[in-house]
Amino acid sequence: MKLNTKNLKAIQDLYPDELAHCYGCGKMNPNGFHLKSYMVDNETIAHFTPEPKYTALPGSVYGGLLASILDCHGTGSAAAFVCENENIPLDGSINIPIRCVTASLKVDFKAPTQMGVALELKGKLRSIEGRKIWVDMTLSANGTICASGEILAIRLKD
Amino acid sequence: MKLNTKNLKAIQDLYPDELAHCYGCGKMNPNGFHLKSYMVDNETIAHFTPEPKYTALPGSVYGGLLASILDCHGTGSAAAFVCENENIPLDGSINIPIRCVTASLKVDFKAPTQMGVALELKGKLRSIEGRKIWVDMTLSANGTICASGEILAIRLKD
Repeated sequence: MKLNTKNLKAIQDLYPDELAHCYGCGKMNPNGFHLKSYMVDNETIAHFTPEPKYTALPGSVYGGLLASILDCHGTGSAAAFVCENENIPLDGSINIPIRCVTASLKVDFKAPTQMGVALELKGKLRSIEGRKIWVDMTLSANGTICASGEILAIRLKD
Repeated sequence: MKLNTKNLKAIQDLYPDELAHCYGCGKMNPNGFHLKSYMVDNETIAHFTPEPKYTALPGSVYGGLLASILDCHGTGSAAAFVCENENIPLDGSINIPIRCVTASLKVDFKAPTQMGVALELKGKLRSIEGRKIWVDMTLSANGTICASGEILAIRLKD
């Protein structure tokens, strides 16, 4: 899926500054991956191209990196789905008051993930129950799903 | 647990060079975490102190980093348990001919993981069935279990 982000705000860039230091996705972390996830038509999407140093066996991407970006895509997606549920705008007009952390992350690795291509992460809401949000994810390279992920995220108290 | 590694060989350092490029634990990767796991009395153990840049919310360690080191500790543990099962020495007298990759990784985050202390990872064999190896893990900081992990690792064919 080609993603035109021109008129979209990344979910993670809407976190308040004091909660935006995450190595994986925080705009306040000068290092890190700066993963950016977007809400598009009721699903979340992110693109990320790993640096070659993140090798597993030669030619494929390190599973820890894949788990890392799925983790950040998952918590970002959870926050965005809560916002949709509560009519909180994701258009950048405000910082969103919703921040989620990971209670549980499961990643199933289905195929080696080719190095050197843009990976596509997608997230779909499974359910929201109180402060618990479940999100199902896929991670694809060249149109092939290489990993699936599921996350139980917990909404931080205000 | 204080770990005297003087007479121990790290499992990951026994991987053949051509299979030792992993960002998390490979001796052939000039970057990376170089996680080192040891077999001690039928369980595996590793210590790792994250650099401060691997922040989650300020003061605690990024979950993606924790998943990454659990992944490498898990595949290393799986290889070591297979070696024990097949009487392959882990004393460094040979490179081990066993290399495992991750099919599934689940991490449950139980408490924020304090930044700035040495984390302790432990692994116990749950079962081996053919090329499938299940390992249960814990990750502790200051004696408190902050995360538990379970991995299904697959032994690569020769």
